[in-house]
Amino acid sequence: MTVHLVGAGPGDPELISVRGARLLASADVVVHDRLARPLLPLAAPGAEIVDVGKSPGSAPVPQSEINRILVEAGRRYACVVRLKGGDPLVFGRGAEEAAALAAAGVPFDVVPGISSVLAAPAAAGVPVTVRGTSRSFTVLTGHEDPELIPLAWWEALVTLGGTIVVLMGASNIAGIADRLCSAGMPAATPVAAVHAATTPAQHVHRSTLDRIGAIPVPSPATIVIGDVAAIDLRSVPGV
Amino acid sequence: MTVHLVGAGPGDPELISVRGARLLASADVVVHDRLARPLLPLAAPGAEIVDVGKSPGSAPVPQSEINRILVEAGRRYACVVRLKGGDPLVFGRGAEEAAALAAAGVPFDVVPGISSVLAAPAAAGVPVTVRGTSRSFTVLTGHEDPELIPLAWWEALVTLGGTIVVLMGASNIAGIADRLCSAGMPAATPVAAVHAATTPAQHVHRSTLDRIGAIPVPSPATIVIGDVAAIDLRSVPGV
Repeated sequence: MTVHLVGAGPGDPELISVRGARLLASADVVVHDRLARPLLPLAAPGAEIVDVGKSPGSAPVPQSEINRILVEAGRRYACVVRLKGGDPLVFGRGAEEAAALAAAGVPFDVVPGISSVLAAPAAAGVPVTVRGTSRSFTVLTGHEDPELIPLAWWEALVTLGGTIVVLMGASNIAGIADRLCSAGMPAATPVAAVHAATTPAQHVHRSTLDRIGAIPVPSPATIVIGDVAAIDLRSVPGV
Repeated sequence: MTVHLVGAGPGDPELISVRGARLLASADVVVHDRLARPLLPLAAPGAEIVDVGKSPGSAPVPQSEINRILVEAGRRYACVVRLKGGDPLVFGRGAEEAAALAAAGVPFDVVPGISSVLAAPAAAGVPVTVRGTSRSFTVLTGHEDPELIPLAWWEALVTLGGTIVVLMGASNIAGIADRLCSAGMPAATPVAAVHAATTPAQHVHRSTLDRIGAIPVPSPATIVIGDVAAIDLRSVPGV
């Protein structure tokens, strides 16, 4: 009688929370995204598994249908886990799913997850903040067309001078880099693109703002832009 | 022979990662901060526990001394856990500790944690991003004196129009709110201050930008500023 919106973490199955793993092991139903697939071996052997993930080339399950599945499962089963990659409330549609459950009177809770916002840079040896180097960091989604966002917005981002983290950044990175250059960010600003962070397929591309657009970075990718992106804590002594 | 920089998560012991819990259970030495104390029951029974946390009123252990302790422990023991509240690389000094270990030739790795950046808003029912409401979110530390940061910086933050999350925000929230008002943010902007998120002492204060400064919010607190701060997914259907 409870739907748990659980963050699966960045990809490595050991990076789910202890609570998330416990709920997964006792779930009657698991409704999962594509990025959460590596976690499925943690589910109870008898659990019903519902894949609502969007694969490239296949028709996505509409959000309204996902909401309906969750509401129905929440009414029928004691323990439903809605397993979402990363954290359930960051640029996913977790808030919409929670609202649908609330509107239907189905009890739910949110179990946070380790987001790629922090885990992807860390896996590449990049700290998002360093004393004296970055006062703040700003997180945006790469799903929005950068050309449709006013230049004044990009200028404000450059004025902040903090680290920029772009989630789901693979497809629009060239456009984002171009807008940031137009907004006055130096062409030599370090950029690190982290593909499939914390999984066996992880690959880190290091470049600069004027060159990153020419590098083919496959999805999923997290992009870190700013001075910290030149750091690799795994190999370089002296930050 | 490895020092693991482990994120303890926001406070609830079940919100550490599965890997973090496993390392803690097999650690020879655990070097921990104040906010990581609730996790100590997860440590191996025979582990040596070293408290380097800063308590209000007590002299803090200097960072150089913490670095020295970690290097020495890493040379003597098979499994050393440096347990830090939240995520090890967010506004802590995890990057400095990693650099000290690298410089000394001591093997280390980073195990990310669930940061209060996301877990504190979630615990208050606040999603940091909502489609159509917030395009981005910016994270800053409340430890810096807001008066010393130029007004142009605060204006850029207001221009972005995204959610603002202030970590360790209890002591400077009045000054931060004041600067944001001066920078043109509407006085009625919703603010949620989350004290001791995910612990039994959790308390959520909801207010607005012009009033939050008058509310005594004890430390530790995470402050969320922006339209999303008016949402409470736990009780309000329809986001």
